[in-house]
Amino acid sequence: MKRALNFNAGPAAIPLPALERARDELLDFNGSGMSIMEHSHRGKDYESVHREAIALLRRLLGVSDAYEVLFLTGGASQQFAQVPMNFLGPGRSADYVITGGWSEKAFEEAQRVGAARVACTTKRDGTFTRVPTQDEVSIDPSAAYVHVTSNNTLYGTQWHWDLDPKGRPLVSDMSSDFLWKPFDVSRYDFIYAGAQKNLGPSGVLIALVKKSFLAEARADIPVIFRYATHAKNDSLYNTPPTFAIYMVRNVLAWLEGIGGLPAIEARNREKASLLYGALDRNEGFYRCPVERASRSTMNVVWRLASEALEDRFVAEAKTHGMIGLKGHRSVGGLRASIYNAVDVATVKALADFVDEFAKKNG
Amino acid sequence: MKRALNFNAGPAAIPLPALERARDELLDFNGSGMSIMEHSHRGKDYESVHREAIALLRRLLGVSDAYEVLFLTGGASQQFAQVPMNFLGPGRSADYVITGGWSEKAFEEAQRVGAARVACTTKRDGTFTRVPTQDEVSIDPSAAYVHVTSNNTLYGTQWHWDLDPKGRPLVSDMSSDFLWKPFDVSRYDFIYAGAQKNLGPSGVLIALVKKSFLAEARADIPVIFRYATHAKNDSLYNTPPTFAIYMVRNVLAWLEGIGGLPAIEARNREKASLLYGALDRNEGFYRCPVERASRSTMNVVWRLASEALEDRFVAEAKTHGMIGLKGHRSVGGLRASIYNAVDVATVKALADFVDEFAKKNG
Repeated sequence: MKRALNFNAGPAAIPLPALERARDELLDFNGSGMSIMEHSHRGKDYESVHREAIALLRRLLGVSDAYEVLFLTGGASQQFAQVPMNFLGPGRSADYVITGGWSEKAFEEAQRVGAARVACTTKRDGTFTRVPTQDEVSIDPSAAYVHVTSNNTLYGTQWHWDLDPKGRPLVSDMSSDFLWKPFDVSRYDFIYAGAQKNLGPSGVLIALVKKSFLAEARADIPVIFRYATHAKNDSLYNTPPTFAIYMVRNVLAWLEGIGGLPAIEARNREKASLLYGALDRNEGFYRCPVERASRSTMNVVWRLASEALEDRFVAEAKTHGMIGLKGHRSVGGLRASIYNAVDVATVKALADFVDEFAKKNG
Repeated sequence: MKRALNFNAGPAAIPLPALERARDELLDFNGSGMSIMEHSHRGKDYESVHREAIALLRRLLGVSDAYEVLFLTGGASQQFAQVPMNFLGPGRSADYVITGGWSEKAFEEAQRVGAARVACTTKRDGTFTRVPTQDEVSIDPSAAYVHVTSNNTLYGTQWHWDLDPKGRPLVSDMSSDFLWKPFDVSRYDFIYAGAQKNLGPSGVLIALVKKSFLAEARADIPVIFRYATHAKNDSLYNTPPTFAIYMVRNVLAWLEGIGGLPAIEARNREKASLLYGALDRNEGFYRCPVERASRSTMNVVWRLASEALEDRFVAEAKTHGMIGLKGHRSVGGLRASIYNAVDVATVKALADFVDEFAKKNG
């Protein structure tokens, strides 16, 4: 079997060892004569997977006891509503930093729950080409929290510095770059990340919540939407998406095995450098719309002179086994998502093709 | 590999052919060189799975175009809140028929969203041993909807007749017996069922919503919680739990292959008859707390003279490869969940053991 060179934006590539492990024990987990999918979420086999996934995450990131680690469902889109439901009480307002389509959705959903305010937007002429500087962000000194989106899959921008929220709680949607490198969790009060980029399949979301922030959450919303419910019950209040969590465990175990976050950061920087390098070498033929200081290491976007040429790029790349290179339907152009599971050789093949295609058509 | 005799209450047994299919193509779906988990939810490979799952469900149940078929997340527990968020506007009240622990939770959650009222409860002395008769249910003529729970996993009761909601919309949580037999969907306005009993793994929920009822839903709640959002976008508004839906497809394809709902109903009735038959033959040694007319075909519960004897039953059954027989932690006793994927031979083995154990210890 030949593996595709998978540049999908999410659901996306999953490390082969994590998939092979799943395949090998799909019918018989740990000698139980059952698939992990058939195990009770209250049984010791599944519980050991559940706890191992949490322990791996804590070890990889150095998450202290000041934080709860939660498995939730509904993806980031549900968190867009659930965060304000928990933390945006009557009479309060929350600050949103708008750096792309997902931050816009988060802001719009917050407005349906309570009062929300734009602390900064980098939108110009209907598009986003960068993240802001600290000076551009005006933070309401009484904001319930400040919300940022760490990486923007649609526009290919990424924060390469941490916002100072001026003493307000900092909430970050890290769905598309969580675990791409080590970072200081203690700067954040609430972090959430859908699994389908760097963590595993779709169907589960990981949240880290500072206990002191959780203590401020509302208790007058439905039980199922309270983060406190899931924290108190170790994410076993109701039946969790057991197989998706099992896959996250497999991916995190692979990540630890290859050397953890320092190792994956080195790989990710090498990959980004290979691909941006090829695009920059052929500047003029290709155009990267994102400002250099805001370039994403996860989602690389670029344009060609015409949509016809972009379509030809996608079609020819496909004959080389490369898939997922079409930009998001809302922005067009080309995009290569090079998440943790995409290896250096795969990105090297794309970078070579980028050179070749420019030579042939430039 | 010896398969366990799996009587788990959920997550529960999955048909072997559905699991084998997943294993065989786990690394390479449809010759794509990628796992189905790695495919984009906007790509044609995944979309064909998504649409096939919906089409299979429509065919198996005979669901008309008057209904939307939705894939949602968060399990039944999230629906306990989401149903009233959508259908219980200010100034309205909803009626709940309480027949077990899950209906109680649904009712309590509804009260956190709006006004809810008990139309009937069959709770006596802290427990439930039956579903009500039509006469016992007093329906508010202006109720926003009437909510029932078709089968009660904890107490082993099941409705064997359809409630007449007296012209009010009828909402049913069918999580634990959906698709156990053919039924008339048109009697219901909203049906929901978590997958982890009869449909596949945990992590996805199927909902059927009558379009005329959907038209009454509130539009002033967060977008992600509006059923209309998911209906309008074919359950692809945000990233769905693709692998869980793929497994549901595999299970529904298996169900169609064995003859659909009439065939599974015959099997389910045979299984229930085998197990209740063995318990009844040894009445006195075993005690079934549920009234005969309310006995569940999915979850069979019984008691022995002492907890020590119950523990021994579980332990000895385990030596025969039978697992999942302990009752729910909130009620104790014994419970065998014999969902669609549990075959007749497996239940026959348990029924034989029930006889044997009574003979040896009676």
